[in-house]
Amino acid sequence: MWLRNCWYVIAWDREIPAVSDDRIFTRTVLNEPIVVYRKADGGLVAMEDRCCHRHAPLSKGRKEGDCIRCGYHGLKFDAAGVCVEAPGIANVPAKARVRTYPVVEKNRWIFVWMGDEARAHLSLLPDNFSCDHPEWRYRPGYMRYDTPWLLIADNLLDFSHLSYVHEKTLGGSTKIAQAAAAIEELGGPGPKGLRITRRVPDVPPSSLHKMVRTFNGNVDRWFVYDFVLPGTLLMHSGGRPCEDAPDDMSRAVQLHSCQTLTPETDGSTHYFFQNSHRAGDGDETTTESIYQGLIDAFEEDKEVISAQYETIKRDPNRPMLPLAIDAGLARFRRLVEREVVAERAAHDATAPDPSRQLA
Amino acid sequence: MWLRNCWYVIAWDREIPAVSDDRIFTRTVLNEPIVVYRKADGGLVAMEDRCCHRHAPLSKGRKEGDCIRCGYHGLKFDAAGVCVEAPGIANVPAKARVRTYPVVEKNRWIFVWMGDEARAHLSLLPDNFSCDHPEWRYRPGYMRYDTPWLLIADNLLDFSHLSYVHEKTLGGSTKIAQAAAAIEELGGPGPKGLRITRRVPDVPPSSLHKMVRTFNGNVDRWFVYDFVLPGTLLMHSGGRPCEDAPDDMSRAVQLHSCQTLTPETDGSTHYFFQNSHRAGDGDETTTESIYQGLIDAFEEDKEVISAQYETIKRDPNRPMLPLAIDAGLARFRRLVEREVVAERAAHDATAPDPSRQLA
Amino acid sequence: MWLRNCWYVIAWDREIPAVSDDRIFTRTVLNEPIVVYRKADGGLVAMEDRCCHRHAPLSKGRKEGDCIRCGYHGLKFDAAGVCVEAPGIANVPAKARVRTYPVVEKNRWIFVWMGDEARAHLSLLPDNFSCDHPEWRYRPGYMRYDTPWLLIADNLLDFSHLSYVHEKTLGGSTKIAQAAAAIEELGGPGPKGLRITRRVPDVPPSSLHKMVRTFNGNVDRWFVYDFVLPGTLLMHSGGRPCEDAPDDMSRAVQLHSCQTLTPETDGSTHYFFQNSHRAGDGDETTTESIYQGLIDAFEEDKEVISAQYETIKRDPNRPMLPLAIDAGLARFRRLVEREVVAERAAHDATAPDPSRQLA
Repeated sequence: MWLRNCWYVIAWDREIPAVSDDRIFTRTVLNEPIVVYRKADGGLVAMEDRCCHRHAPLSKGRKEGDCIRCGYHGLKFDAAGVCVEAPGIANVPAKARVRTYPVVEKNRWIFVWMGDEARAHLSLLPDNFSCDHPEWRYRPGYMRYDTPWLLIADNLLDFSHLSYVHEKTLGGSTKIAQAAAAIEELGGPGPKGLRITRRVPDVPPSSLHKMVRTFNGNVDRWFVYDFVLPGTLLMHSGGRPCEDAPDDMSRAVQLHSCQTLTPETDGSTHYFFQNSHRAGDGDETTTESIYQGLIDAFEEDKEVISAQYETIKRDPNRPMLPLAIDAGLARFRRLVEREVVAERAAHDATAPDPSRQLA
Repeated sequence: MWLRNCWYVIAWDREIPAVSDDRIFTRTVLNEPIVVYRKADGGLVAMEDRCCHRHAPLSKGRKEGDCIRCGYHGLKFDAAGVCVEAPGIANVPAKARVRTYPVVEKNRWIFVWMGDEARAHLSLLPDNFSCDHPEWRYRPGYMRYDTPWLLIADNLLDFSHLSYVHEKTLGGSTKIAQAAAAIEELGGPGPKGLRITRRVPDVPPSSLHKMVRTFNGNVDRWFVYDFVLPGTLLMHSGGRPCEDAPDDMSRAVQLHSCQTLTPETDGSTHYFFQNSHRAGDGDETTTESIYQGLIDAFEEDKEVISAQYETIKRDPNRPMLPLAIDAGLARFRRLVEREVVAERAAHDATAPDPSRQLA
Repeated sequence: MWLRNCWYVIAWDREIPAVSDDRIFTRTVLNEPIVVYRKADGGLVAMEDRCCHRHAPLSKGRKEGDCIRCGYHGLKFDAAGVCVEAPGIANVPAKARVRTYPVVEKNRWIFVWMGDEARAHLSLLPDNFSCDHPEWRYRPGYMRYDTPWLLIADNLLDFSHLSYVHEKTLGGSTKIAQAAAAIEELGGPGPKGLRITRRVPDVPPSSLHKMVRTFNGNVDRWFVYDFVLPGTLLMHSGGRPCEDAPDDMSRAVQLHSCQTLTPETDGSTHYFFQNSHRAGDGDETTTESIYQGLIDAFEEDKEVISAQYETIKRDPNRPMLPLAIDAGLARFRRLVEREVVAERAAHDATAPDPSRQLA
């Protein structure tokens, strides 16, 4: 289950080869293989990675200026997906074209729009500001899961797991699980979602905090994040010595994290993430340490979520047991279901192009 | 196809970590993942390896005294499967519990009962005496097959294969295949099954016999075994110099073997086995040689059965050709089918708990 | 989709072990595993690789003279597939037999007939003369594809791909793609199919040509091939200096290639091939160079066809876009469909043996 009328991150900007580079980037989103390349003017093209002729992947072909040529029979497509040359064919049929996708770059994330082009509004992009901001520093991260995206979203929507999955890394205290999270629905013009706030007073600093500063005692920790459609986490978190006033950030660690889930197929997911620290706090070693700490923790998540998925697959219809701590994930799942239903209804009402069916 | 109201071997006793050991044993039986651990009093717990909350495997969590705590969100379950703590949850719902299974230990085999608890009678355990008897010695064996259990049961129910599959190991003579087996249905209070008797006069001793004693000439061989539900072989076998009287065991080799099949999934099987020799015959080297000889022979079985299964999968509906030598396996398969039908009927008659459906 | 009433190549002659060799050759054709062995008189036997008793593969057994004995329970089958011995069975039932297949050897290819034996006419064998001709030399080739056979046939039926897939090997010029192919239906008594003729004037010699001769300038190239049922290419190709008369072969390179596709399963294919040069042109080094050049080029095909198949599997119902260059493959696919329909109709009309159903 996934939405189509959304911006999905397909890559970090640095993953797309330069204009002068012969390699062609390809990645599958919502079960559709997509090539992304840069035109001479630096603009991006996102095109289905499937020649309309015999379905060979275009990524096995070659770039020719702003065009791409299939490596099987030589059909050449321009940046709009129109076939402009077919060797041995006098009259290229007008139907010879490959689907292109709206594609935008915002703060180093490359987004593709997988649904109805008419609905592709930039206002639906997430505010991933810390991915490109002079006051913040990070190293970009990527992992691939052989797991459906919603199980990973569940994980990000309930931080009580920090006490157990990340006992020795991001977590460090059972108080995180015990602290109740406040959940509110986001209003505003941006993508729909939830704001989740969790404050954990008087606990030891986490391993990430200690990479940025030295603390002599306990800290008050906070996690304030928006989790927005299609599956993006935007989080302010940090720790402040307990004795400091709530508005005194002079000795606090402040972090901002952007993480997003892009379904590859029904059973696999792309995960793009970063956790930024303030540019004034620490140097490159700090950035690198935080990145490594994040990787260690996310490997812990991956291990438990992958094991959970294996267990679910043995008996997929067995009901789970809803608990109060599931409020965030339950509300987000309801939001996704509601939006999927609305999207299908809108789609059915508008004489759909069958090649863009909702999956 | 498998029965539920049976004791299945899930492990050799030595596979279950000691109370002081942090590791958690898990194995899948009838497609259900199950953890087995010891309580402080040494008693055993068998519990479904699936947290009732979000289905993470409990084996990825940790033991806390006689309890087990899920490693995802920290739910803690006592030895009866009742959730006694759920971090962040004020009132743990009564439905928060994990299935436990009747579990018993008998002669070093750990058995779980996979069906209706009310029917879990100890009288249905097999008589695997030689697994723990001062007069017998063996080394425990285990193999895993990517093959349905019934194909392996077929193999154990027709020893004519010894002449061909084990020509150079357990077999050694085409006379084994030529000797007719007597088959009778077992009565008595224990598990249902068949007794199969095969006597093979005047043949060379097998490779196992020669590990125990030196023979100057041919022997009379015998194989007398019970094959009982759900899939356990209990066998007296041996060889005696032809010139000795039938009741003279002074120069005979006497062996007792216990072997059992536990379905892991529809297409895979756990195989636990041992072949004991008399404690007075030989030393540790003898025990080890017999074990290695058994492994060599059972690898021969696995090769032919795995190849057979690959061929069957290419054309699963192709009928086999019943022959007289299949009498044992045919009768056992009919017994299993009859019992499965009876079990389903009894189950349907008693307002079933849908979580314990017959598969 | 495949035809049954056809000769399929199952092996190169050298793949079948000699009479004195204990090994048993097995290969799967149309999803049926088949053993092929030689009798004492040198004649060939092709027999289903599945014992009729419990479906163990006969290839795990052993040859005994002209017979084959199953390695599981010792049933012995003669060269006609009749069970002539079943250890422990007094009266072997007449039904105890294994299917055999008509098998012939022609010019070093071993063919099996997969359909109705009554229709197995030698006139349906292809004319693979250069596989065994004193005036031609080659090294035999074999590759296995994890791809349906028709995607590979498509490739062989449209040489416009030479300009792109084989730009640096067999191809070398976009003029090949631009040259139109003449296509005509084959008449005559042999297997049905198409004759495809492509002439490409004034292009550089291909890499293969240069292995045979030194050219100072451009050549006129030709590709004239029959593509016949079930999936065999028989091709004369070559290149001649542009300044030479069309009937002057004195400085030309002349090649003859035989290639054939045998479906292994719905999704995998055996590919047997050779490309011969005139015996008077070059020596063993030439033969070897041409073979290596062919392998390099066929790996290029395999890469693009495998990638194409992966893309097709993501969305198997997506229609392709027919172009004029697809005339050859479109006509061949129609021929196959027509023949499959006819075969099924004939089969239904003659009270089919269900064990020989069309798949």
